[in-house]
Amino acid sequence: MSTQSLENLTARLNRLPGIGIKTAQRLAYHILTMTEEEAEGLSSAIVTAKKSIHYCPVCGNFTEDELCDICSDPKRDRSVICVVKEARDVSYMERMREYRGSYHVLGGTLSPMDGIGPEDIRIAELVERVKTGEVAEVILATNPDVEGEATAAYIAKMLKPMGVRTTRIAHGIPIGGNLEYVDEITLFKAIENRREV
Amino acid sequence: MSTQSLENLTARLNRLPGIGIKTAQRLAYHILTMTEEEAEGLSSAIVTAKKSIHYCPVCGNFTEDELCDICSDPKRDRSVICVVKEARDVSYMERMREYRGSYHVLGGTLSPMDGIGPEDIRIAELVERVKTGEVAEVILATNPDVEGEATAAYIAKMLKPMGVRTTRIAHGIPIGGNLEYVDEITLFKAIENRREV
Repeated sequence: MSTQSLENLTARLNRLPGIGIKTAQRLAYHILTMTEEEAEGLSSAIVTAKKSIHYCPVCGNFTEDELCDICSDPKRDRSVICVVKEARDVSYMERMREYRGSYHVLGGTLSPMDGIGPEDIRIAELVERVKTGEVAEVILATNPDVEGEATAAYIAKMLKPMGVRTTRIAHGIPIGGNLEYVDEITLFKAIENRREV
Repeated sequence: MSTQSLENLTARLNRLPGIGIKTAQRLAYHILTMTEEEAEGLSSAIVTAKKSIHYCPVCGNFTEDELCDICSDPKRDRSVICVVKEARDVSYMERMREYRGSYHVLGGTLSPMDGIGPEDIRIAELVERVKTGEVAEVILATNPDVEGEATAAYIAKMLKPMGVRTTRIAHGIPIGGNLEYVDEITLFKAIENRREV
C-alpha cells in the first residue's frame, strides 16, 4: 500500500475514545484536505497541551501554572472541598458557576475488580488537607455508580472521626426530565430523598 | 485561565467535521491522560500524513509514491475508468473488492451555486485519458444528488462524440433494505430501472 501514513493516522485516531473506524477514516481524510498550517496547528496543539499541562499539587486539577486557577484564586472558599473522580469533573462542576469552594480530584475511584484500592487514589492527600483544620465541609461528588458510591462511603467513614461535615450530592429526577424516561433506581432515589414542600 | 493549551487543543479538535464541542472536550481530556509517546505519535501522524500524501497525477487518488497503488498495479484494467467525486470515494469503491478497472477522481462536482464549473474539477484530464484511445468504458459513479447527477450528465455529453461507452451506476433499493424505509425518489428509481426476471 502506498498510503501507509494515512493508515497510521487512521489507526491512531481510531484509538481515541468514541472514535470508531469510520469516523477515524473521515477525520483522516479531512486532515489530508486541511491547509498545512491547520494540520500543523492541530499536531502541535496535541503535543503542547500534553507537555504543558500537569496536575495541581494541591487539588489534582489540570493546570499549566504551579497551582490551578481555583487553588490560586483568593476568592475561592478553602473551607469547602468538593471531591470528584477525575480532573475533567472539575470543569463539569464549574459550568454551574455557583460553587465557590475548592476541589479535590481523586484520580479514580475504588474498584477492587480492577485492583484499585484506597492507596491508589488521592485519599491520603484529602485527609492531609482536612487535618490542617481549615476545612469545614467535604462534599462527595463522585459519580452515582457502584465504584463512586463505594468511594464516597469509604471517604465518609475516614473523615467521620475528624469532625468535618461530610455531605453527598443529591440524586433524583433531573430538571427538565420526564418520569417516563427516568430509570427505576433514580426514581427510587427520588422517592427516598423526597422533601417536605 | 491557566489551561490555555487545553482550550487551544479543544478548539482545534472542535473544527474537525462531526466533532462537536463536548466530543472535542472529551478527546482533549483523553489526550492529556495519554502517555507522552502516544500523544507524540498522534501528533506526528497528522503532520506526516499531511506532508507525505499527495494526489496521483493520473487518477487523482491519494498516494505517497509517484503513482497511486491502482495506477501502478499492472493487473488493473486501464480500459475501464470509474469516475468519482473525491479521493476518499476510491477507497469506498475498493471495499467491494470486485472492481478491477481504474479510477478518475474529479475533486468535486459541478455546482453553479458554489461557483464550481467544469474547469474547476478534473474533467479535462478525464477527456485527455479517453483521447489516448485505450479507454473502452467510463463508469460515472458520482453521488446520486443534484450536483452528482448534473456532473454525470455533463461528462456523458462530453464523452458521447468520442465514441467511448459511458455508463452510470445503478440506483435502487439497497440490498437488505426495506420498502418501508426507502425514500420516494429511490423507490421511483427502483421502479424506473426495473429488470426482466
